[in-house]
Amino acid sequence: MRYSKLFTKTLKDAPADEVAKNAQLLIRAGFIYKVMAGVYAYTPLGLRVLENIKTIVREEMNKEDGQELIMTNLQTKETWSTTSRWDDEVVDVWFKTKLKDQTELGLAWSHEEAIMEMMQQYVKSYKDLPVSVYQFQTKLRNELRAKSGIMRGREFVMKDMYSLHESPEDLAKYYESIKEAYTRIYERIGIGKDTFVTFASGGAFTKFSHEFQTVCDAGEDVLYLHREKNIAVNEEVLEDALKDLDINVEELEKVKSAEVGNIFNFGDGKSEEMGITFTDTNGVQKPIYLASYGVGITRVMGVVVEKFADERGIVWPESIAPVQVYLACIGDAAKVVNKADQLYSDLRFAGIEVLYDDRDVRPGQKFADADLMGIPHRVVISQKTVEQEAVEYKARTEETAKLITDEQLMQVLHV
Amino acid sequence: MRYSKLFTKTLKDAPADEVAKNAQLLIRAGFIYKVMAGVYAYTPLGLRVLENIKTIVREEMNKEDGQELIMTNLQTKETWSTTSRWDDEVVDVWFKTKLKDQTELGLAWSHEEAIMEMMQQYVKSYKDLPVSVYQFQTKLRNELRAKSGIMRGREFVMKDMYSLHESPEDLAKYYESIKEAYTRIYERIGIGKDTFVTFASGGAFTKFSHEFQTVCDAGEDVLYLHREKNIAVNEEVLEDALKDLDINVEELEKVKSAEVGNIFNFGDGKSEEMGITFTDTNGVQKPIYLASYGVGITRVMGVVVEKFADERGIVWPESIAPVQVYLACIGDAAKVVNKADQLYSDLRFAGIEVLYDDRDVRPGQKFADADLMGIPHRVVISQKTVEQEAVEYKARTEETAKLITDEQLMQVLHV
Repeated sequence: MRYSKLFTKTLKDAPADEVAKNAQLLIRAGFIYKVMAGVYAYTPLGLRVLENIKTIVREEMNKEDGQELIMTNLQTKETWSTTSRWDDEVVDVWFKTKLKDQTELGLAWSHEEAIMEMMQQYVKSYKDLPVSVYQFQTKLRNELRAKSGIMRGREFVMKDMYSLHESPEDLAKYYESIKEAYTRIYERIGIGKDTFVTFASGGAFTKFSHEFQTVCDAGEDVLYLHREKNIAVNEEVLEDALKDLDINVEELEKVKSAEVGNIFNFGDGKSEEMGITFTDTNGVQKPIYLASYGVGITRVMGVVVEKFADERGIVWPESIAPVQVYLACIGDAAKVVNKADQLYSDLRFAGIEVLYDDRDVRPGQKFADADLMGIPHRVVISQKTVEQEAVEYKARTEETAKLITDEQLMQVLHV
Repeated sequence: MRYSKLFTKTLKDAPADEVAKNAQLLIRAGFIYKVMAGVYAYTPLGLRVLENIKTIVREEMNKEDGQELIMTNLQTKETWSTTSRWDDEVVDVWFKTKLKDQTELGLAWSHEEAIMEMMQQYVKSYKDLPVSVYQFQTKLRNELRAKSGIMRGREFVMKDMYSLHESPEDLAKYYESIKEAYTRIYERIGIGKDTFVTFASGGAFTKFSHEFQTVCDAGEDVLYLHREKNIAVNEEVLEDALKDLDINVEELEKVKSAEVGNIFNFGDGKSEEMGITFTDTNGVQKPIYLASYGVGITRVMGVVVEKFADERGIVWPESIAPVQVYLACIGDAAKVVNKADQLYSDLRFAGIEVLYDDRDVRPGQKFADADLMGIPHRVVISQKTVEQEAVEYKARTEETAKLITDEQLMQVLHV
């Protein structure tokens, strides 16, 4: 895409009321626009990052036989009154609204009850199990405070998956496979090394749930960590976990972290509560075993910004960057512009996504924008590079640029 | 995909409270699930149709330099109070809700004010114009009645585009190009022949707007139509239009129709109301010219079902069908199953999407499901076809099947 056509511009300053580093940088770089605290629009560059993260998650969920669907935002009181979760005292993040006839509706903050109610229509017998469905849904949560930018949104994108099973053993097997799928997801997104499967509070139906926590100073959680043993415990269950794991708290490192995913075993509790059953192999009606698995798509994007940003701006991992190459044309001599145009065309032909800075602004502005936007590879075409039959190349993570040939550039870009 | 893995099942009956043919068929075929009147979840098959329609629309919007983004559902009172449209007396489809501190919020039913407010940040001078942005957004509208299935949702997917211009002439030029893009969209979706650019009410800022209306008995609009002259007038502006077009009402055919798109010229009225300006070539502050362009993605899906369905079920045009081929394996003899497995593999290798009915149910059930689901091409492998070294083929629109060779099948499927 040509920068001159892109409607967003980089900004010198973020809005004064924006306190989170991730949102400050994303706003300044033109990736998001702030509507209110915890509510952000995603401009073309930001939407590309989101879609790249979604693609990785979708591929891994499909590998585990997940079936993609899309549930609704509007929720009925009836659906959630089958459990206690319609009650604002029990769930304190509901946004509620009303139909014209004053019927109360809720805006979905999660979908367990909705999924189970729907599945009643399709799951009748053991032959219909197991089944696993997922969606990328814009969830609304009425958070009291929303000061962490896109890491805690009142409106945010979540991948939520739900798996239904006939037995706890079958659930356990699938639960483990999703744990592994999540590990692959965070690895591919570039935060694998610092992301840990974490013991966390299990709620009504199970002792522990598992969170995926990424070490991150901007995170809202506190983790007790043993990197070598790959053990992580959320502070909220520290005492219980120490007992169960037979480990001493002094062995553990205390770090701040952000929850980037969670998996939750409801056992047959949700099904019992809702009175939903299937017919087992003996013809007996039994409750269904349920687990749910979330990845905060927008939150992951915020965590990546927080973790990797430096004093010059965002640093995107290649796998989720909005484009791979920032191509800057310096000067308007015909030979320079022709070379830059040709390279733009060649790279696109090779399947490489390029942001082509063809604007009439000074070089320093182009370099600053390339850094602020966090594009992995910066390529500069100028009078000097044309004379030397080379291109100037700098990775976002490097300090200084170097002259390389076109062929070397293609190698760097794995073309 | 293997039918045995798909969690949805076809149903003999739609819910008793579902009165719209499109929703009845889509529910029975396992494409949607009804949450309440006007609110439907999209199961894997339904989501595929939606995504196919979105892909066509996205391609055509990108051709016209549209930049995709995603705005927010949650809207502030401040944004919409810059015009009169926060007022429930002016806009009677708002769903409203509240933050914990009792701040009122709205759920987006359209985005003109939100787009203009955001664009203020990026559009400063004539150099920043024109610009055109679009999104696929889940809109919420508090409709009093919602009895038309997915043709009038309280929650529905819309493609809405907004273009900003420095002059009425520049807007008019772009407006015409989107009119043509829309014509291409409906052509590609398969309803082009029966879809007409229609004079409709212009509201506060312009005499007429343009709707795209598809002739359809289930539609909620009434159209006066001259097919040869390609003239269509919405009943609501008939008198005015007859005068302007110098045409006699007796020349026109009266038909029922459904609005599948609309384009709307706001002139500089919205910008004036909101006090948003740009600096023109002479350094003078001027209001921005705005047009908006909608396509109801879910509604189009409903219209296609209504128009093409026959007594056996849905009939999808190839361009938006969830899969191209329904492959039914009849019997469990090894030779038969091997042949069906091989064909499933060959078709997928050739890039053809297949629903492989590998279930242990009687043939009549498979044939009925293929028809109800509306899959364009039905291929049957049985003892008979294997013996004759052929496959049985029937297009959804044909009455009887015929035996053809594998090579002939590949030709039919344009492989």
